[in-house]
Amino acid sequence: MTLIEPTTTVRSVPVAPTSGALHPLGIDEVAITGGVWARRQDVNGRNTLDHIEGWLEREGWLGNFDRAAAGTLPEGRRGREFSDSEVYKYLEAVAWEIARRGGDDELEARFRSIVSRVAAAQEPDGYLNTRFGRPGQEPRWSNLEWGHELYCLGHLFQAAVARVRTRPGADDGLVEIARRAADLVCEVFGEGGDERICGHAEVEVGLVELGRALGEPRYLEQARLFVERHGAGTLAEHEWGRSYYQDDVSVRETTALHGHAVRANYLASGAADVALDTGDEELLGSLERQWATTVERRTYVTGGQGSHHQDEAFGEDWELPADRAYSETCAGVSSVMFSWRLLLARGDVRYADLIERTLFNVIETSPSAEGTSFYYANTLHQRVPGAEADADTISPRAHSSLRAPWFEVSCCPPNTARTFASLAAYLATTDAAGLQLHQYAPGTIRTRLGDGREVALAVETEYPVAGAVRVRVESAASGPWTLSLRVPSWATGARLTVRPVAGETETADAAPGVASVTREFAAGDELVLELPMAPRFTRPDPRVDAVRGCVAVERGPEVFALESVDLVGTALETSDFADLRIDDTVSPRENGGRLVVALRDRLTGASAEVPLVRYHEWAERGPSQMRVWIPVVGA
Amino acid sequence: MTLIEPTTTVRSVPVAPTSGALHPLGIDEVAITGGVWARRQDVNGRNTLDHIEGWLEREGWLGNFDRAAAGTLPEGRRGREFSDSEVYKYLEAVAWEIARRGGDDELEARFRSIVSRVAAAQEPDGYLNTRFGRPGQEPRWSNLEWGHELYCLGHLFQAAVARVRTRPGADDGLVEIARRAADLVCEVFGEGGDERICGHAEVEVGLVELGRALGEPRYLEQARLFVERHGAGTLAEHEWGRSYYQDDVSVRETTALHGHAVRANYLASGAADVALDTGDEELLGSLERQWATTVERRTYVTGGQGSHHQDEAFGEDWELPADRAYSETCAGVSSVMFSWRLLLARGDVRYADLIERTLFNVIETSPSAEGTSFYYANTLHQRVPGAEADADTISPRAHSSLRAPWFEVSCCPPNTARTFASLAAYLATTDAAGLQLHQYAPGTIRTRLGDGREVALAVETEYPVAGAVRVRVESAASGPWTLSLRVPSWATGARLTVRPVAGETETADAAPGVASVTREFAAGDELVLELPMAPRFTRPDPRVDAVRGCVAVERGPEVFALESVDLVGTALETSDFADLRIDDTVSPRENGGRLVVALRDRLTGASAEVPLVRYHEWAERGPSQMRVWIPVVGA
Repeated sequence: MTLIEPTTTVRSVPVAPTSGALHPLGIDEVAITGGVWARRQDVNGRNTLDHIEGWLEREGWLGNFDRAAAGTLPEGRRGREFSDSEVYKYLEAVAWEIARRGGDDELEARFRSIVSRVAAAQEPDGYLNTRFGRPGQEPRWSNLEWGHELYCLGHLFQAAVARVRTRPGADDGLVEIARRAADLVCEVFGEGGDERICGHAEVEVGLVELGRALGEPRYLEQARLFVERHGAGTLAEHEWGRSYYQDDVSVRETTALHGHAVRANYLASGAADVALDTGDEELLGSLERQWATTVERRTYVTGGQGSHHQDEAFGEDWELPADRAYSETCAGVSSVMFSWRLLLARGDVRYADLIERTLFNVIETSPSAEGTSFYYANTLHQRVPGAEADADTISPRAHSSLRAPWFEVSCCPPNTARTFASLAAYLATTDAAGLQLHQYAPGTIRTRLGDGREVALAVETEYPVAGAVRVRVESAASGPWTLSLRVPSWATGARLTVRPVAGETETADAAPGVASVTREFAAGDELVLELPMAPRFTRPDPRVDAVRGCVAVERGPEVFALESVDLVGTALETSDFADLRIDDTVSPRENGGRLVVALRDRLTGASAEVPLVRYHEWAERGPSQMRVWIPVVGA
Repeated sequence: MTLIEPTTTVRSVPVAPTSGALHPLGIDEVAITGGVWARRQDVNGRNTLDHIEGWLEREGWLGNFDRAAAGTLPEGRRGREFSDSEVYKYLEAVAWEIARRGGDDELEARFRSIVSRVAAAQEPDGYLNTRFGRPGQEPRWSNLEWGHELYCLGHLFQAAVARVRTRPGADDGLVEIARRAADLVCEVFGEGGDERICGHAEVEVGLVELGRALGEPRYLEQARLFVERHGAGTLAEHEWGRSYYQDDVSVRETTALHGHAVRANYLASGAADVALDTGDEELLGSLERQWATTVERRTYVTGGQGSHHQDEAFGEDWELPADRAYSETCAGVSSVMFSWRLLLARGDVRYADLIERTLFNVIETSPSAEGTSFYYANTLHQRVPGAEADADTISPRAHSSLRAPWFEVSCCPPNTARTFASLAAYLATTDAAGLQLHQYAPGTIRTRLGDGREVALAVETEYPVAGAVRVRVESAASGPWTLSLRVPSWATGARLTVRPVAGETETADAAPGVASVTREFAAGDELVLELPMAPRFTRPDPRVDAVRGCVAVERGPEVFALESVDLVGTALETSDFADLRIDDTVSPRENGGRLVVALRDRLTGASAEVPLVRYHEWAERGPSQMRVWIPVVGA
């Protein structure tokens, strides 16, 4: 594994491995200034954060900390056993958001206020959880299978990382809260101590990063111990098998992600971190193979993961039902975390491909346009129009067929919030003598290459509405360096144009993978990547039974869907949704800003051109039927 | 609705409506003497009953009654909240079995011993449940959503019915236990009392039948109240919606069975009983339409019902995934109960068709050949070979991929046991001047027609191994009457031969539906129904997404399956099971007692003729992969 040079600067990154192929760039170095992601960041900052904090108060999950401080628990404690973690994910989101805005006094005050409430609930020895350990509550660590105590702390650690990397030296106290809790975890679960693991992985990834951020090697070691203990069967047997919490087989011997999809991805992310920071090539190689198998055989066309409602788990290979696809939003978030770590480790753009697919078609699907209601699960087939969601009512997690404002298990809203607030950190990387652009959004990048040279770029694009990505060098140090642009796997026929301020413009084919230009760049030099944005049919792997005889429609990185509201006014308005077939001999085409396909009623023969909707925008127009995979005529 | 004449004789029947098109015949009138069902009844009586009683003792579910009697509960109570009901289902099975054997002193003694333990646990006011109502337990009726108190009593009532109809006047006390409990139910939940329902329907069907058996109209009225209250929302909201326990919409306004599949069928059965005994044509008509929609759109090719693991529930129309098909064994049992009531009500043989399909492909699939291990759920697609079951270990309910000896929720073993023990009661019916044969097994029938005339028949057949069913009149009263034989819906090309002892033999086509002969029969007259038993491909409804591009193979009433153990020694031994395709241009054929189809590996092109297995016999040869729906070449 390539050892990257440690940087002395604190970068505003969620992930900073000590080795790997690529350096991550912080949100202080990359800014998204327009397009779909800027809009989403804006909505997230304007609406979603307020929305989340409102529900945390209203549901009493913040109040639990006050009751802990007042010594009145367990009386009046509200929420599930993991409700503390939503507060921490929210704090992480706010920490990123403050930094993204370059400071915000009002938000900073809110952040500090919540941190002080959390601080007041911490026990003298560092223990922090509102659900366990007090008289009248179950003892600490007495129910690692379901208690989520370590899981909650993992999210606390990630919040502290976000804070220390965006406001180093801030005196709010969050970092010290995390440090004291982490020290306690090492004391209780360290070598010679309690040898069990948490039933929901997350503490591993939190510990590694906190160790990186604070320069504390014990936390990495503790994370390593947790990772290695998975598969030892220290947790109790489970109705759905120990695979549910990845305690059936060691991480190293795992062949594909399995069991609960969020747990699996958090664990894989933590294991990748451990592998990177301990130089464990064997473990990293195993994780890469697990990723590849999982993506080939256990991942939806949307990037979604998890086939089962019952246990929120991966199915077997090729078990990818479209209806009741679980595809939990948080599985998408955690899948991005895992892929991002492998991308940093190896530099292979396949990982960035999956990140893009998941961002556009899972994470962006969850929140409504206003950012105040969410999908917990992201089905690919809605047979019956859902019930109108009530903006004022908490929902069971995955039952809602329309986006809901909040859930009894409400991990998804703050998980999307922290992802959007820190999204700029997932766009670009550097290595010793180059910069890699992985995701395309209008914005600016100002950073140093691995060798210390400063570069600044501006990106202009309407992607994914249009396929042109224009990268302008704003300033560059002397000497040659390499600028690399990801060519997505679907982008056969892409072209790259190099337009230097001095010299000839040159255009060449850019095959899927990476298009790189190495030269001594001058300010004003431009690279223009033209990605082919014609809509396309995607056919399923013949081993996926559930969607045999169907096609999906994609355009660029976006998956499209047929939604029944778009049948109104067509010759198919009265057709049974289950009888609609797509004529796959007629290419999908663009018409008036919509993507249109030819549909036919298999019974009446009636046909019509019908617009599709971006999957991530479905159910924004009220209850409707929807399907991503559409049966072809004759099927 | 036709009013059938009340019979004064006590018939050994599980169901005796006071109106309807057809009279049921009791197990004292119909005997199964050979073939698959006699073998199954024999195994059930020899092995399964002992097996069940052993586990009821071992798991302490019988002991709970002793603890109740001793006044030591709740200490040491074992099992789930509905464990009492397994004891009652077992008692029902034993009551039928004693009668089926024409008496059995050892079994009778065991029966009485358990009844006395149950009796000792009954409270002075008739209340009977080991889980509720004592100091240290939740109060009676405090958790109707999940408590299953009324559900348990419904099974108690059915056991008492079995007893009183097979041993009227027996002094064991079971009937009095049931009567006292039923009186309490009427007192607590009657007009002006508690207006809620039980979260698991069953008490309705139990109350009606107990009322019929004991001539107590209050029980019918109480059942009617419970049926009518469904849909009023008296139960608490539920994560999966009130549809889970059919409290979202009234039975009358329901359009298809929905929610938990066992609850739905028990409720529909009870509602049919209420409709029949109160002359409620509107309700009965609604139930018929619900049945038709459910069978068309929400029923597997096996007759199995219930698509979801999470809530053991029906899916939406056409949502019938083959893998993780839930198809709970008890949903099969309760579906037979519902269809049987509609058959008695209307005489339409469609209901008998579904009963046959469900008996052969769901209920017969659950127990192993030895009758000591069971499927709880009956998947139609096993992607990965299951783990070897441990004959000594209790299993979570639906997790086992091989049959398991017992479950934490162990309704299925005693539910199959009571069905097999009473199976003879589901074979034939009479009406005013005729007898109808619905299911074909070697045996004898000796009964009176509705007009009181005695008839006796003998049936000889190897069905479903062979398609000839020979019905011989053993004795017949004077005057013409009608003998009707069901021609299954798949049996296009059937022929019926009438071979009277005096007169010409005549053969005619017998279209699917009913083949009837009306004449003055003489002893020795024979009817021979020839059912075409060539194996056939069955293609799915084009609206069922999950099995598009697949065929199933059926022969007679039996569904067949491809099992990976049958690939050993063929050119496809090393193929990936997911890559196998069936050549549907080559008809399945019989070869050496097996049914053989042409398969091809879609990648290698390798092909072989491979035998299929009867679905109900799958997984009898150790762990294997299995599929009922096989993709066709090119799909």
